[in-house]
Amino acid sequence: MSTDVNTDVRTNALPWQARGANGHRPNTGVHVHRVEVETTKRVEIRDLTAVLEEVVRNTGVVAGLVTLSTMHTTTAVFVNEPQTALLDDVEQLLERLVPRGEEWKHNDPRYSDCDRHNADAHLRAIMLGNSVALQVADGALTMGQWQRVLMAELDGPRTRSLVVQVLQAE
Amino acid sequence: MSTDVNTDVRTNALPWQARGANGHRPNTGVHVHRVEVETTKRVEIRDLTAVLEEVVRNTGVVAGLVTLSTMHTTTAVFVNEPQTALLDDVEQLLERLVPRGEEWKHNDPRYSDCDRHNADAHLRAIMLGNSVALQVADGALTMGQWQRVLMAELDGPRTRSLVVQVLQAE
Amino acid sequence: MSTDVNTDVRTNALPWQARGANGHRPNTGVHVHRVEVETTKRVEIRDLTAVLEEVVRNTGVVAGLVTLSTMHTTTAVFVNEPQTALLDDVEQLLERLVPRGEEWKHNDPRYSDCDRHNADAHLRAIMLGNSVALQVADGALTMGQWQRVLMAELDGPRTRSLVVQVLQAE
Repeated sequence: MSTDVNTDVRTNALPWQARGANGHRPNTGVHVHRVEVETTKRVEIRDLTAVLEEVVRNTGVVAGLVTLSTMHTTTAVFVNEPQTALLDDVEQLLERLVPRGEEWKHNDPRYSDCDRHNADAHLRAIMLGNSVALQVADGALTMGQWQRVLMAELDGPRTRSLVVQVLQAE
Repeated sequence: MSTDVNTDVRTNALPWQARGANGHRPNTGVHVHRVEVETTKRVEIRDLTAVLEEVVRNTGVVAGLVTLSTMHTTTAVFVNEPQTALLDDVEQLLERLVPRGEEWKHNDPRYSDCDRHNADAHLRAIMLGNSVALQVADGALTMGQWQRVLMAELDGPRTRSLVVQVLQAE
Repeated sequence: MSTDVNTDVRTNALPWQARGANGHRPNTGVHVHRVEVETTKRVEIRDLTAVLEEVVRNTGVVAGLVTLSTMHTTTAVFVNEPQTALLDDVEQLLERLVPRGEEWKHNDPRYSDCDRHNADAHLRAIMLGNSVALQVADGALTMGQWQRVLMAELDGPRTRSLVVQVLQAE
């Protein structure tokens, strides 16, 4: 698929694509796309909705279920509104609930060999969740007016991989 | 479907209903129902299990996966026990973790044009999650003895929409 | 399936197993396994990845979606890294966010007939989530290098039941 949705979000169809084998009109199937996101800050929230919509459109799936899963333990995905002020509040909330400077064992060389000192990133990712499931109907994502699919980078900047699976069910 | 489950929860079959096209016994399909809930307080937790069970029963689906997704950014859905005392504790926890009176940017006219001053509602919704996935087996939801599907209104009272998708897989 | 993955995690195929009825090569189907976990402490995090991988391998499903759902309101499942120091941090975070000793109504005989005084366990379970969805591709779980599927016991020690559904979609 094209990458004009966002210049630093790349998606690639994975090498295989399974489909039903019962004739010329398969009625189930799975479509898989890998999405790469280059993040630019340590903590940053990105809107992936347009990418997901394009993936679904390109599969031609009319009805089914889409799963977006991050492949990392220090990123998260969730659904809400991408207003800049609100996203700043999300970051403030994460710092309030899981302060970076707390004495976490994961950051302590006596207990851990992790030299990224990113306990806060793991813990915040656990709070937010690693995957979202979205319904597809009439060939589009079933979402409310203000809802968007957001990715939280919690220990960037890095190149991040997420996998989109479109489960075709009509 | 009938609405006698709860007088202020309405469900409607959406106009389309996709099914497999491979003959008289389709073995996959998607059934979609919209559920409307009239909430009565700013923060309120409602049990939607009976509605979901009726939706599943009416589809006749024996095995598959049900997704319940809220269409709003200031409501949430999750699974737990609907004991009144415990639901009060959930509300107390939300106020403890995400105080309504904190100086959130989303409530500040210098940063935001939102006049509902509902940053707490967005942030609490993110903590709780916007969707649940439930297994269907033997024509019923696969749940534990004390588990119920709950919706949290976090910025009511309002009319709220949720969409139930029953993915038929047998 | 065999139980040699972990001596105190048992899985059993449930009595039924639905499959497509359209001939000798069904292209959809649902496989269900119940997993029993004996926990040994009040709060404890267990890695269930190997069990899930074995369940998927035994179904022979090439592409689809796996749901792991706990049947309890005081346990949770989530995805992250099972480093011992980090899991200690998760427990510390749960105590920080939802202190066991807080005056929760669920623990107060004036409001609740629950004699386990386990409000913290319910509330922590709500924070973490009751189910995870994992993609299957090429017959294996689609996960990142450091990701594992973890179960949090929050009011043990007890025998816990989880249900794995493998939705076959190729």
